[in-house]
Amino acid sequence: MLAVTILGNNSALPMHERHPTAQVVTDGERLFLVDCGEGTQIQMIRYKIRRSRIGHIFISHLHGDHYYGLIGLLNSYNLTGRTEPIHLYAPPPLQAILDLQMAAAESRLCYPLVFHALGEDGILFEDTRITVRCFRVRHSIPCWGFLFREQPRPRKVRPEAASAAGVPSSFFPQLKAGEDFIDAQGRRIANEQLTAAPPVPKAYAYCADTSFHEPIAESVRGSDLIYHEATYLDDQWEKAHARHHSTALQAARIARLAGAGRLILGHFSNKYEALDDFREEAATEFPDVEVCREGVTYLVG
Amino acid sequence: MLAVTILGNNSALPMHERHPTAQVVTDGERLFLVDCGEGTQIQMIRYKIRRSRIGHIFISHLHGDHYYGLIGLLNSYNLTGRTEPIHLYAPPPLQAILDLQMAAAESRLCYPLVFHALGEDGILFEDTRITVRCFRVRHSIPCWGFLFREQPRPRKVRPEAASAAGVPSSFFPQLKAGEDFIDAQGRRIANEQLTAAPPVPKAYAYCADTSFHEPIAESVRGSDLIYHEATYLDDQWEKAHARHHSTALQAARIARLAGAGRLILGHFSNKYEALDDFREEAATEFPDVEVCREGVTYLVG
Repeated sequence: MLAVTILGNNSALPMHERHPTAQVVTDGERLFLVDCGEGTQIQMIRYKIRRSRIGHIFISHLHGDHYYGLIGLLNSYNLTGRTEPIHLYAPPPLQAILDLQMAAAESRLCYPLVFHALGEDGILFEDTRITVRCFRVRHSIPCWGFLFREQPRPRKVRPEAASAAGVPSSFFPQLKAGEDFIDAQGRRIANEQLTAAPPVPKAYAYCADTSFHEPIAESVRGSDLIYHEATYLDDQWEKAHARHHSTALQAARIARLAGAGRLILGHFSNKYEALDDFREEAATEFPDVEVCREGVTYLVG
Repeated sequence: MLAVTILGNNSALPMHERHPTAQVVTDGERLFLVDCGEGTQIQMIRYKIRRSRIGHIFISHLHGDHYYGLIGLLNSYNLTGRTEPIHLYAPPPLQAILDLQMAAAESRLCYPLVFHALGEDGILFEDTRITVRCFRVRHSIPCWGFLFREQPRPRKVRPEAASAAGVPSSFFPQLKAGEDFIDAQGRRIANEQLTAAPPVPKAYAYCADTSFHEPIAESVRGSDLIYHEATYLDDQWEKAHARHHSTALQAARIARLAGAGRLILGHFSNKYEALDDFREEAATEFPDVEVCREGVTYLVG
């Protein structure tokens, strides 16, 4: 079951008890960290995130509110004696920054840190359960969104039906793959009679910091849950545009264009203490929308 | 009135609701920041520190728990449109780290950041009210302590005594400087009869991260308040030594050797949740000792 836990929902300055951007995408026991603003490791303690389960970290861009907490987290892994590798997917200049900080501390990591430089849109990570893709968004510096998509699961064998039809268990892999069964008398038994459909794969899209940019809708088409920034309300759309950010209404437009299942909004400007207007404004364009709250876990699909 | 407010009292990992090292030294309306672990700006909000009043920042060494919060703070000054300069006193390699982070964000500060590389022991800053000196301590990487000392104040003219002796107000500057007065009849009137002694200048010593190192006592001799790290209790003195840290007992020895007025302890290892033993152990060697608590302001002298 894919889900995302919000550790920070504010834009640049920490304020109004809100923290800079960080999210944890969970796929069962595995955790993926998406962005890592200052104080993320403290937020992880507060919300009981088991940071040792994080193996992959994705950094969207190199504005400080999205990565200043990373070096502290990497250092803490060192102090707790981590041995499992961390795979870090990030804009290329981050590697030199981390190297310089490690050198200044005369420190070496006691676990492998594998740096994957972000570049062209495409698959960053893939295994039997999930794929993670990156896609470019439009911000003042190079910036990427991330799309987490479950892999299609095999069909589920219905044991009683299979037994009644005389299917040997050695044929179950083919059943799970969708093949029909031909019995000893040569009769074809349709796969659908012997198996149940697996859950539909779910997808979560993190759209990072971006101005309104229609191609994003294509990149995240059909996602069950989309996170889109909404730094401002739409009466500030000119300011949003000038600063390469979006409004709540624009975020909702992307969700509608993408045919999303649900939308969560974040990265709110400090000028807003109350956030209810963000939901209301976005709902005029895309009804299934929420303001994302720190410490809350949103199920995907 | 010199005072110090503790924003973080823990060693490397944030834990037990304790944060990494940061302190604010206050001299009236002026604030000096000493070290700046991750989350310092959030701690400033929590404890209502007016960060705009900080003009000078001192970083003791480049282990992350002493500076990872700095770049976020500098960035926040940018976002709030600061124009006043920040003077940063820090180990030389920090400049390249900050430059690289600013370049990655394609960002420029809107205020002057004046970098002062730490080196030989000596005066870093001096004006009519205060001097700040640095002194080397003994840690695994280059590390400095800081000594804040009030300047001697002029003597205070006692207006009634001065008037009775016929001292013209034009002579008051000499009185404040300690000169005797010769009246019209040629009689010498002792300065002590015409003035009151000013408050004795106070001194606060921040001893940073260090193993037990007797020369520190000489560097901070006579300080009214000393902060000394106490990462471990003394039954762990071998570990403390191996890791270039001190025990509570060793901190107390430095305070006693220095003839300090009072001692506060900090930088506690995560292995300790309760801290009462630190005070008790140190008090066997130096009675006027406290465990420093986050959010608490300690008056100097």
